[in-house]
Amino acid sequence: MECYLDNSATTRVKKEVADLTYKLMTQDYGNPSSMHLIGMKAENYVKEARNQIAATLKAKPLEIIFTSGGTESNNLAIIQAAFAKKRSGNHIITSKIEHPSVSNTMKYLEENGFEVTYLDVDSQGKVLASELEKALRPDTILVSIMHVNNEIGSLMPIDEFGKIIKNYNKNILFHVDAIQSYGKYNIRPDRMGIDLLSVSGHKIHAPKGSGFLYKNEKVNFKPLIHGGGQQEGYRSGTENVPAIAGLGLAAKLMYDNLDEKTRNMRELRAFFIENMSATEGISINGPLNNDEAAPHIISVSFKGMRSEVMLHALEERGIYVSAGSACSSNKPAISKTLLAINLDKDLLDSTVRYSLNGDNNKEEIIYAIENTKEIYAKYKKYMRH
Amino acid sequence: MECYLDNSATTRVKKEVADLTYKLMTQDYGNPSSMHLIGMKAENYVKEARNQIAATLKAKPLEIIFTSGGTESNNLAIIQAAFAKKRSGNHIITSKIEHPSVSNTMKYLEENGFEVTYLDVDSQGKVLASELEKALRPDTILVSIMHVNNEIGSLMPIDEFGKIIKNYNKNILFHVDAIQSYGKYNIRPDRMGIDLLSVSGHKIHAPKGSGFLYKNEKVNFKPLIHGGGQQEGYRSGTENVPAIAGLGLAAKLMYDNLDEKTRNMRELRAFFIENMSATEGISINGPLNNDEAAPHIISVSFKGMRSEVMLHALEERGIYVSAGSACSSNKPAISKTLLAINLDKDLLDSTVRYSLNGDNNKEEIIYAIENTKEIYAKYKKYMRH
Repeated sequence: MECYLDNSATTRVKKEVADLTYKLMTQDYGNPSSMHLIGMKAENYVKEARNQIAATLKAKPLEIIFTSGGTESNNLAIIQAAFAKKRSGNHIITSKIEHPSVSNTMKYLEENGFEVTYLDVDSQGKVLASELEKALRPDTILVSIMHVNNEIGSLMPIDEFGKIIKNYNKNILFHVDAIQSYGKYNIRPDRMGIDLLSVSGHKIHAPKGSGFLYKNEKVNFKPLIHGGGQQEGYRSGTENVPAIAGLGLAAKLMYDNLDEKTRNMRELRAFFIENMSATEGISINGPLNNDEAAPHIISVSFKGMRSEVMLHALEERGIYVSAGSACSSNKPAISKTLLAINLDKDLLDSTVRYSLNGDNNKEEIIYAIENTKEIYAKYKKYMRH
Repeated sequence: MECYLDNSATTRVKKEVADLTYKLMTQDYGNPSSMHLIGMKAENYVKEARNQIAATLKAKPLEIIFTSGGTESNNLAIIQAAFAKKRSGNHIITSKIEHPSVSNTMKYLEENGFEVTYLDVDSQGKVLASELEKALRPDTILVSIMHVNNEIGSLMPIDEFGKIIKNYNKNILFHVDAIQSYGKYNIRPDRMGIDLLSVSGHKIHAPKGSGFLYKNEKVNFKPLIHGGGQQEGYRSGTENVPAIAGLGLAAKLMYDNLDEKTRNMRELRAFFIENMSATEGISINGPLNNDEAAPHIISVSFKGMRSEVMLHALEERGIYVSAGSACSSNKPAISKTLLAINLDKDLLDSTVRYSLNGDNNKEEIIYAIENTKEIYAKYKKYMRH
């Protein structure tokens, strides 16, 4: 049996999405900037995708800026928001458990004269509203907090954060990295006080190299990438029509019967946790309760066993998981998220992430549970000798 | 008959390239940063593409940085080279006929304290070596000149430019926008004094959203996009494996039997020009001689007829061309290239670009010639009444 449980690293592109992408590479392959029929057809695909995505957020189509992925979306949002607001102050707030595409962008801003406050999280990996409230200052111009943590699945109350920020000063921009939450939750930026929201395509069964930034129409900033003035000048470069159309379709598919699909994942997650946590030496990180955690991410520590050993043992049985977050390119560094939740030092290097998608079934989860337990039991036995 | 002659705007993805891309979306869909087998497979595809591309330039694999396309490559090269060299001076040289992804990036640098010299071109759209020589100064840090102009196909002697620049001061960085020339010419950056070279995938039958920057290993600069540290930190973000693998294969295919394919295009171009230029009111812009022009671009002016009228009349007969360059997103602005070559004012808005690919055949070109002539003859007749 093959059981891919690394969906927070990347997902398989859905067949209907890949078919559409293929068609736009080989058949309707025009440049949307070309004035002839083939160009117009391509332009219409981009328009349709923009409408499909806007519909999932109840946003306006022009509020969607297509990018090359989540990392570019985060860079565009954070860098350009900071520079656009520079006259009002230079203080930015974020958390200690952001993805590197946020935290390293913050470092870049620090090198360029901005001051960044990194909020602590509680033992469940949650940024506390009270901490955010305390950190707000008259010179704060931007707050960037992720919706769902990519390593342990903790869920942030972004609607509450939006209220706190906007009550304090409605000119502070609120950016949300929704890369792990889009397609799992209904998000209403306009009602939640969110000005900017980043999404990656390849986490929702769309092609790699696709993504978007929701930008409230009232927010104005400069582009990160200059050129032919495509996308109202916010992102130049020939639109990646096949991937954009694929992203639009994938977004639509994610939000069709969303509740049913997330309910399925939640049940599987609860089942997994229930069956796993009774074993001595195995512990679950982040919120156990489904209401406070994303439906698809489970972080598990195996006392005394290095995560890479578990990963490769599982791999031999066709089960694919991540050690750490798999977003930080090969180098197995110590996870900032696990440090931030004060995980026991000896578990930092013994933690594995299982991440689901909407199509996983109970059979697969049982297979993963049984094999994980068996591998760990054998390992413990071996260790005792 | 359908006759797509807008290949400088974008090309159809080759079937074998699209098939590979499809396979990597639906089957080998891993994240190269994942440590398991599926991730390693993905990583190997990226490595292979890097090798394939490096081979076409006789460069080292690590000198290839994958980007989301030509526009990002130009932005990354120009912005980061300028800031990396800021201590040595703030003077940059470019030409008046660059693509907007270069010229608008230059504008951004001007807003950030750099001084930019825009070189004139001759009536054939060629930057003169003597002009470049005159413009070099002790505080010059970067020269960026395109290899082939995207609107009229003029070919720049980049090897000569490389010598001039490096003889003057070997620390000046030389960037070449090779978006219209890669896959048509053998380019040897190391021998030509080229430090940075931009390429776009969708101009060579690879997927949109793919491209790369060749960066000589001795050049060091900061990334434009921050994050997980992929690609040695030069370009973060999960690698777009399907498009990258497609780009590698497309590059290999372009350079297999390169001479044969460009000879075919040259013959078609010469045939087109010969049969078209005899007609009164029709004139060809840029170099007529095949040695001084790219093999695939032909710019034609039709006296008294607006380019959009010709474009749509051709479209009705299944012939697809561009009015202007189609790279500047819909807004039909006056072409800077046509202004720079001092084209008659009344022809500025009467110019159409025909651009070929390696698979075009004589039958198609005859069809395009005959229909163009017929449309123009009818139009002239109609105008006289």
